[in-house]
Amino acid sequence: MSLLVIGTVAFDQVETPFGASGKIIGGAATYVSLAASYFLKNNIHLVSVVGDDFPQSGIENFHRRGIGTEGLEIKKGEKSFFWHGRYRADMNSRDTLETQLNVLADFNPVLPESLKELDFLMLGNLVPAVQKSVLNQMNKRPKLTVMDTMNFWMDTAWDELIETIKLVDVLTINDEEARQLTGEYSLVVAAQKILTMGPKYLVIKKGENGALLFHGKEVFYAPALPLEEVFDPTGAGDSFAGGFIGYLAATGDLSFENMKRAVIYGSAIASFCVEKFGIERVTDLRQEELDARIKEFVHLVQFDINLA
Amino acid sequence: MSLLVIGTVAFDQVETPFGASGKIIGGAATYVSLAASYFLKNNIHLVSVVGDDFPQSGIENFHRRGIGTEGLEIKKGEKSFFWHGRYRADMNSRDTLETQLNVLADFNPVLPESLKELDFLMLGNLVPAVQKSVLNQMNKRPKLTVMDTMNFWMDTAWDELIETIKLVDVLTINDEEARQLTGEYSLVVAAQKILTMGPKYLVIKKGENGALLFHGKEVFYAPALPLEEVFDPTGAGDSFAGGFIGYLAATGDLSFENMKRAVIYGSAIASFCVEKFGIERVTDLRQEELDARIKEFVHLVQFDINLA
Repeated sequence: MSLLVIGTVAFDQVETPFGASGKIIGGAATYVSLAASYFLKNNIHLVSVVGDDFPQSGIENFHRRGIGTEGLEIKKGEKSFFWHGRYRADMNSRDTLETQLNVLADFNPVLPESLKELDFLMLGNLVPAVQKSVLNQMNKRPKLTVMDTMNFWMDTAWDELIETIKLVDVLTINDEEARQLTGEYSLVVAAQKILTMGPKYLVIKKGENGALLFHGKEVFYAPALPLEEVFDPTGAGDSFAGGFIGYLAATGDLSFENMKRAVIYGSAIASFCVEKFGIERVTDLRQEELDARIKEFVHLVQFDINLA
Repeated sequence: MSLLVIGTVAFDQVETPFGASGKIIGGAATYVSLAASYFLKNNIHLVSVVGDDFPQSGIENFHRRGIGTEGLEIKKGEKSFFWHGRYRADMNSRDTLETQLNVLADFNPVLPESLKELDFLMLGNLVPAVQKSVLNQMNKRPKLTVMDTMNFWMDTAWDELIETIKLVDVLTINDEEARQLTGEYSLVVAAQKILTMGPKYLVIKKGENGALLFHGKEVFYAPALPLEEVFDPTGAGDSFAGGFIGYLAATGDLSFENMKRAVIYGSAIASFCVEKFGIERVTDLRQEELDARIKEFVHLVQFDINLA
């Protein structure tokens, strides 16, 4: 199977109680595609835009992981999207110190013909209208479209957001966003509402409290691995989404049982992501490390009760 | 096996966004012993104190569930402990509007001889010095002592609390309390510290985010069942503890595998507790309801990944 990933490729500058990252490579599509590459070993293609300040080594890094960049536009004389933020002591909330839209200000991707037939589509966090435009450019409906979004678009682009959500198969958002999107405090009630808005599947990400997968009347709760230290949460949600869709694209199996596995694999990749600044851990992960972590997940939640 | 439960038997008055309870029966030992009675069908014994305002029907309710009240002191002419609180809109935080210690002000239980040899001991949330005094009155060390406590004692009785924690096998606290007790934000690091303070097992309760069981290097994460509606969280933690120790006492098996099952059974009872005001749901639960909920738990977290 093949996977098309749209979203930001950007620079981040991150401050946490543990230190400051300096200017490093980040962006939703970066994390998504790198995370997906641990499952789908090639046939991942990126659609995004950067300025000519984006380093060649960053692009080579994608290629090294089997990620095609023919859809990555490089705008001469312009600068890449930049986000500068600081995490609070609890590492769960963060303040944006600076955002420079730069090339993203008028990003209006035109899909190369070669990318219009790919099997799986990941709409990484981005202006909903751009997500929708990419979906509409596909020659046929992808086997699965996963959309990630955030509260910012609920505040600033509500109508477009709702229209885009209507078109996708899977929505991934966090617990607060699920509440904001529906006006419901109970995540169960919020999920029921969201499943009437278009998506057939909903993943609610709860950070250190794991993730919930909803589909019809089915619910699956994947815990997060309790970590000694969360060093930098940036990109964890995108890495989750990348692992999730990458595993589904690699296996080509869209049963609920396989979706549950995809949530576990996504959670595993996300648990690595937060161990270091930026993309460091989702760039050089070894297969043995990933296998060992999956074992930890199984061990963490496994119990044996004989049902009558 | 037999189980001794100490803690409060009291009146609560609870206000939630869904309504007001009026004055109803509550108290840690009430919830613990009722929850335990779904596993250990008799041989549960209560040690607590009430005033003569406590209704005979409340005492008969204990007897009906196989709970002995020979250790429940009834103080003539005095009033029972009373707590009046209001939950905020998120149902996760609450404000105490009024506390009347009444009979609890000078509660200094003297164990009847018949209760000094019981197998399992639950030290429900109470002044740590009283918890310790009961433990010291036992003729022999119980097979398992479980202690529940709260942040209030960390603020007001630190030294006694630490001394009491030193003596128990299992400590159950919530995530914020684990952080306060250790000064560590990471629950993994906090757990490691607590396991050097005396207890061999630690349960960290995370409310709607489930519960973690720590023992040596082992960790088990039991999710909470996602509920459409949490009506009244009062007593959920005590019900959890009661289900946990009740299951262990009923099975007499203290292996880590069985502790994990006990966490699931405790979580199941707690998930009923919050459905109605007060003890209503942990009083009249049917076995079929409990079995069905355990099935839901298994279904909720079950996934099938073939490890290499």
